Amino acid sequence: MQFPPLPRGKNSEDTLKRRKILEETLKLKFRHLTNNSLSAEAASKNIENFIGVSQVPLGVVGPLHVKGQNARGAYYIPMATTEGALLATVNRGCSVVTASGGATCRIIRDEMTRAPILRVDDIEHGIKVINWIGRNMETLRRATAKTTSHGELVSAEPYLSGRNLFIRFSFATGDAMGMNMATIASQQMCDMIEKKTGAKTISVSGNMCTDKKAAAINYIGGRGKSVLADVNVPESVVVEKLHASSAEIAEAATRKNLVGSAMALSMGFNSHFANMAAALFIATGQDAAQVVEASMGMSIAESTDSGLYFSVRIPSLEVGTVGGGTGLPTQREALEIMGCAGSGKSPKFAEIAAALILAGELSTLAAQSRGELAAAHSSLAR
Amino acid sequence: MQFPPLPRGKNSEDTLKRRKILEETLKLKFRHLTNNSLSAEAASKNIENFIGVSQVPLGVVGPLHVKGQNARGAYYIPMATTEGALLATVNRGCSVVTASGGATCRIIRDEMTRAPILRVDDIEHGIKVINWIGRNMETLRRATAKTTSHGELVSAEPYLSGRNLFIRFSFATGDAMGMNMATIASQQMCDMIEKKTGAKTISVSGNMCTDKKAAAINYIGGRGKSVLADVNVPESVVVEKLHASSAEIAEAATRKNLVGSAMALSMGFNSHFANMAAALFIATGQDAAQVVEASMGMSIAESTDSGLYFSVRIPSLEVGTVGGGTGLPTQREALEIMGCAGSGKSPKFAEIAAALILAGELSTLAAQSRGELAAAHSSLAR
Amino acid sequence: MQFPPLPRGKNSEDTLKRRKILEETLKLKFRHLTNNSLSAEAASKNIENFIGVSQVPLGVVGPLHVKGQNARGAYYIPMATTEGALLATVNRGCSVVTASGGATCRIIRDEMTRAPILRVDDIEHGIKVINWIGRNMETLRRATAKTTSHGELVSAEPYLSGRNLFIRFSFATGDAMGMNMATIASQQMCDMIEKKTGAKTISVSGNMCTDKKAAAINYIGGRGKSVLADVNVPESVVVEKLHASSAEIAEAATRKNLVGSAMALSMGFNSHFANMAAALFIATGQDAAQVVEASMGMSIAESTDSGLYFSVRIPSLEVGTVGGGTGLPTQREALEIMGCAGSGKSPKFAEIAAALILAGELSTLAAQSRGELAAAHSSLAR
Amino acid sequence: MQFPPLPRGKNSEDTLKRRKILEETLKLKFRHLTNNSLSAEAASKNIENFIGVSQVPLGVVGPLHVKGQNARGAYYIPMATTEGALLATVNRGCSVVTASGGATCRIIRDEMTRAPILRVDDIEHGIKVINWIGRNMETLRRATAKTTSHGELVSAEPYLSGRNLFIRFSFATGDAMGMNMATIASQQMCDMIEKKTGAKTISVSGNMCTDKKAAAINYIGGRGKSVLADVNVPESVVVEKLHASSAEIAEAATRKNLVGSAMALSMGFNSHFANMAAALFIATGQDAAQVVEASMGMSIAESTDSGLYFSVRIPSLEVGTVGGGTGLPTQREALEIMGCAGSGKSPKFAEIAAALILAGELSTLAAQSRGELAAAHSSLAR
Repeated sequence: MQFPPLPRGKNSEDTLKRRKILEETLKLKFRHLTNNSLSAEAASKNIENFIGVSQVPLGVVGPLHVKGQNARGAYYIPMATTEGALLATVNRGCSVVTASGGATCRIIRDEMTRAPILRVDDIEHGIKVINWIGRNMETLRRATAKTTSHGELVSAEPYLSGRNLFIRFSFATGDAMGMNMATIASQQMCDMIEKKTGAKTISVSGNMCTDKKAAAINYIGGRGKSVLADVNVPESVVVEKLHASSAEIAEAATRKNLVGSAMALSMGFNSHFANMAAALFIATGQDAAQVVEASMGMSIAESTDSGLYFSVRIPSLEVGTVGGGTGLPTQREALEIMGCAGSGKSPKFAEIAAALILAGELSTLAAQSRGELAAAHSSLAR
Repeated sequence: MQFPPLPRGKNSEDTLKRRKILEETLKLKFRHLTNNSLSAEAASKNIENFIGVSQVPLGVVGPLHVKGQNARGAYYIPMATTEGALLATVNRGCSVVTASGGATCRIIRDEMTRAPILRVDDIEHGIKVINWIGRNMETLRRATAKTTSHGELVSAEPYLSGRNLFIRFSFATGDAMGMNMATIASQQMCDMIEKKTGAKTISVSGNMCTDKKAAAINYIGGRGKSVLADVNVPESVVVEKLHASSAEIAEAATRKNLVGSAMALSMGFNSHFANMAAALFIATGQDAAQVVEASMGMSIAESTDSGLYFSVRIPSLEVGTVGGGTGLPTQREALEIMGCAGSGKSPKFAEIAAALILAGELSTLAAQSRGELAAAHSSLAR
Repeated sequence: MQFPPLPRGKNSEDTLKRRKILEETLKLKFRHLTNNSLSAEAASKNIENFIGVSQVPLGVVGPLHVKGQNARGAYYIPMATTEGALLATVNRGCSVVTASGGATCRIIRDEMTRAPILRVDDIEHGIKVINWIGRNMETLRRATAKTTSHGELVSAEPYLSGRNLFIRFSFATGDAMGMNMATIASQQMCDMIEKKTGAKTISVSGNMCTDKKAAAINYIGGRGKSVLADVNVPESVVVEKLHASSAEIAEAATRKNLVGSAMALSMGFNSHFANMAAALFIATGQDAAQVVEASMGMSIAESTDSGLYFSVRIPSLEVGTVGGGTGLPTQREALEIMGCAGSGKSPKFAEIAAALILAGELSTLAAQSRGELAAAHSSLAR
Repeated sequence: MQFPPLPRGKNSEDTLKRRKILEETLKLKFRHLTNNSLSAEAASKNIENFIGVSQVPLGVVGPLHVKGQNARGAYYIPMATTEGALLATVNRGCSVVTASGGATCRIIRDEMTRAPILRVDDIEHGIKVINWIGRNMETLRRATAKTTSHGELVSAEPYLSGRNLFIRFSFATGDAMGMNMATIASQQMCDMIEKKTGAKTISVSGNMCTDKKAAAINYIGGRGKSVLADVNVPESVVVEKLHASSAEIAEAATRKNLVGSAMALSMGFNSHFANMAAALFIATGQDAAQVVEASMGMSIAESTDSGLYFSVRIPSLEVGTVGGGTGLPTQREALEIMGCAGSGKSPKFAEIAAALILAGELSTLAAQSRGELAAAHSSLAR
């Protein structure tokens, strides 16, 4: 097959040509990916080599009652997925949480990290560089302030192993997820550190960030927003809506989420955080690859005197309501469904996300404890 | 706010009503998520509570030369993302790989797993149950064969801790990713095991599967397709296309992907597998939450006499070309771009995916080793 | 300070001189390390540069009732430690287990591993080498049989990442821990593989063995002896001897051993396996550095209708009753206390070890659940 | 077999009786474990149920040149082990390091941790408890000061998951390893927190400490002393003493310590830290079970213009020169060999320990890169 040069898809005309050449070369006719409301111009900051859109089925679950410090009240929540049975399951969870008076949600940390790797001469040199950084935090802070209006350097944690010096910079990033501003600010600081200390920047990302890979450093210490959520479900609601007892659910949670994940040495002591995160991320223009970090964390069920106590801990929820794909047409509409579009909304959005994950966990765990998972997939998803 | 009951979005009429009530309740007007070529009926196996679509920007990279056992030749590859600079970066990688004669790709394992958790009385009882399963594999195999025409039970690995017995079932699943058939077959086997041994099924998924969570068991042993890929890039190509030397890239790879990920105790000894996986998964109707597993693995660069040796190991690439979202309109078109739609195509698809991940890794690593990452995000993605 | 050349301590005369020169150089007078029953000649296979002995306090706990397949009955068990309160705690656990009718112990796997790393040209070459090994297992088995009379090659698991090929060889090693025979046999096989396939041995140990480091591969799959143990403690025994209820102990076990270790991302979902392992290993001449592997595993407590169900899973207990330090004077006496000295005794020894670990776990957990840990250390160990 | 009641071994007379009854019951005659210089009275703070000693062969390696901030000069170092070939190997490493001008050693952190687990009502309550602790650090500090004269509370890191609140307390512990004082102080603080906040202490150790288990939290953040060491070995020394080239050693280090450990998902990116740690710990009366933490860390080799750069990172070296077993007869003599007995010596001891681990790593890695490991075990250790 011959591959003719393709235009870059930077504007509408260019995109048309690109698509046409592709169709001719591949002997295909695109009927669907062209059917959209996204112009090449509007997409140009979010993609290159543009040819159209992927249409991901979008549904809405809820209402879900959230008792956060930013999200207070009941919300409909958009989810984009191709996994049958997912929304039905999560929707049931929303109904349970709402019938129980809502989910308490708290953000306990909110910082984006980037960790360059610099090569130093040896450990003595490395320690000197670390000390230089310690003494010059204010200078570094001012320097980064010039690269970004929203980001702010919060701290710098050094990790030294031989000639490898990692500096894990943490930033406050406002309503943006903040990876880009963190990268640009880190590069700026690396340039300064290089000049002043003789360390050599090997990569602005040295993987102790850690971006888009499951990592203990983030599981333990958090990255982006660290969010907790919990709910007390009265036994009557457990029985009526989940067709189980709190004791059954607690047993399933312990044996599966704690013992099972421990046996597999997983960083996900939960059932399927990733499902809710992925569907919400795609719907709202978050970075879908960061579902990896959102998959980490723990959900716990305990049987109590009054029913079921259920909680989730999501240490690394990396989300924003400005920047990234959040301004794209359908993504913005999805954010608007929750009243979460634009500035000042990212803490609210994170709290709703945590409540959604809680609801989805609870419902699936109850289904599994009742042997209903296979049945649900049989009837809804095949 | 009052929340009126919403129709379930099961057919077009229902969906219209659901959307309308939502718009009225929320005082919104959906202009974009309604603009699509996906009917409620067509979406009904992939989602519930349907209201429209999320439009994710779609581009195409390539040609990428692949030397697999199923994919042989050059391919254009669709990617859906909202992360600016990603496709430009990956496209450069494709160009490097292709200029180097292509990427060798090999699938070394192909099995989907599901691991129920059963409660046994004690370790003696647990060992009896394990022995019963060992003696009755053929019976179990025949029983599962009735639940699925495509799936086939391959093995059953027992893990016992106190009263917790996990059986990790592995299945051949043809061209489907196979999670659903594995779940249904596992439930069927649990029912038999319960009856014959007195063990009690606590959950058909006991988290040693491990689905949608990073886990050592899959990182080491694999889940779905385990794929390897590599390429030898001549030094002249390294210099010309990557503006770096192979020594620089190898150093960055070692310090970042090996040392950095080791320092963070990550399961991703790579730069950003997840980016390529997420964009390809969304474009082609894979399960986006399984990007979590695809993020695991290792990429290694070595400077050789002739240039750069570059490789990736992706132990858990869970993909299919039938089932899931692969039959949806734009998703199918995306698969067709690679000639990967439908039956008999999933090994080919996995090889192309591995080559794509290789290309993206190589390009980003080269950019980072040259201090270009921040610059790329500044110019392309803000 | 001048450092005169020291004799090697290979025989008694040599050792005397070595010690004398040391004393003169350092201006010390050794009064205690010389007081022992170990001649330089007798120590010569276990140490070089010999000067005397370290005297580690030795005690005995028990009787502990063990219901294994090899150890059946009640045993006194020697422990060498310097940690005050440890034996008192473990002894209480022994009393509880014995009063409950004993601990059931089962060895579910027994293989020693060694995993060389070989450099191959690329993944195609690597797969060829893997295939060669698969076809020549019988040849390899015969070749290793010449290097050892007790060891037997059981399997060879290949792991390939780029040019790095790891072969994890598993061996049956009789009553020896077996690391040395596994190393020698692996070197022999590497030599053959090199000659036949062109792969280059980089190290006979490539760290996928994994020896003396905590590693997921062993935590999940086991190394040495994988042993399970459990006990049902009647509620009356719990209350009388542990001054707690089974519910309290189960709660402490879940929150500490499961939730706590999950939060820390530990490979030890237990309280202190390592304490019992270290004291038993030192007493009996095991390799003390392999306490690292023995520290991995899980202990679980469940409150039942009749009392407390308690279990341990120890996947990597690397022990022997011949070879290593097992034949040294005090070490042999310690083994004799359990009737475990010499050939044919290593399964029995492993079962007793598992029961000991169970007893120590149970007692400490009960103490911690009652707030007694600090008190015990205050009164016994300061 | 009948088991008569045994005296507790608290004093010499009692110990004689205990031993005698044991001998009669077991029909044994102890000839060696009785041969020692340790009285029951002297051992009484280090062990219960005392019957004698375990004699572990003791040797001395060195001189090893150390360039620390506390240890400066050349040292002989005692090691107690039963693993043949170990001291010979380490001794070679000492010779290489010394011939290269010595090993630079730096302690970068020095804190002991204890992390109680408290049960709270829910996440709101948990956050209140965390805030109370934050506001009352000074009160807590004063309260702990009453329980210990040497320990000092440095920080308190909270980790909350549902109703599980872990507080990771860090302490400065002077020259003691400090586990006991940390436990007692933590219990004291738990009592205060309980009274003031309504949280319920479940266990003074909640496993986020994490003691005697490999855990990411310590691998990343450190526990006890975090120590770095490195050395530049001239190529001539590499060739002459290690019979290898720096390139060969660097390749082996990368493929084994980095790639191999990454493939096994180990927390030990090294060859055998645990061997040196175990032998030094036993010789000097450290807690042998804490070899588990000392096994964690990384050793890296790089080929440079002038030879070989070699480094180790040991994040969790938990050692002391007072308390524990450091005052026992032979243990004290062993500390005296290094001039490390008693107060004011623990930083010096930690630096020597790090240099020893470096030396042992380097020598073994060189041996493995030359295929000499199997040969060494054949000739020295069988």
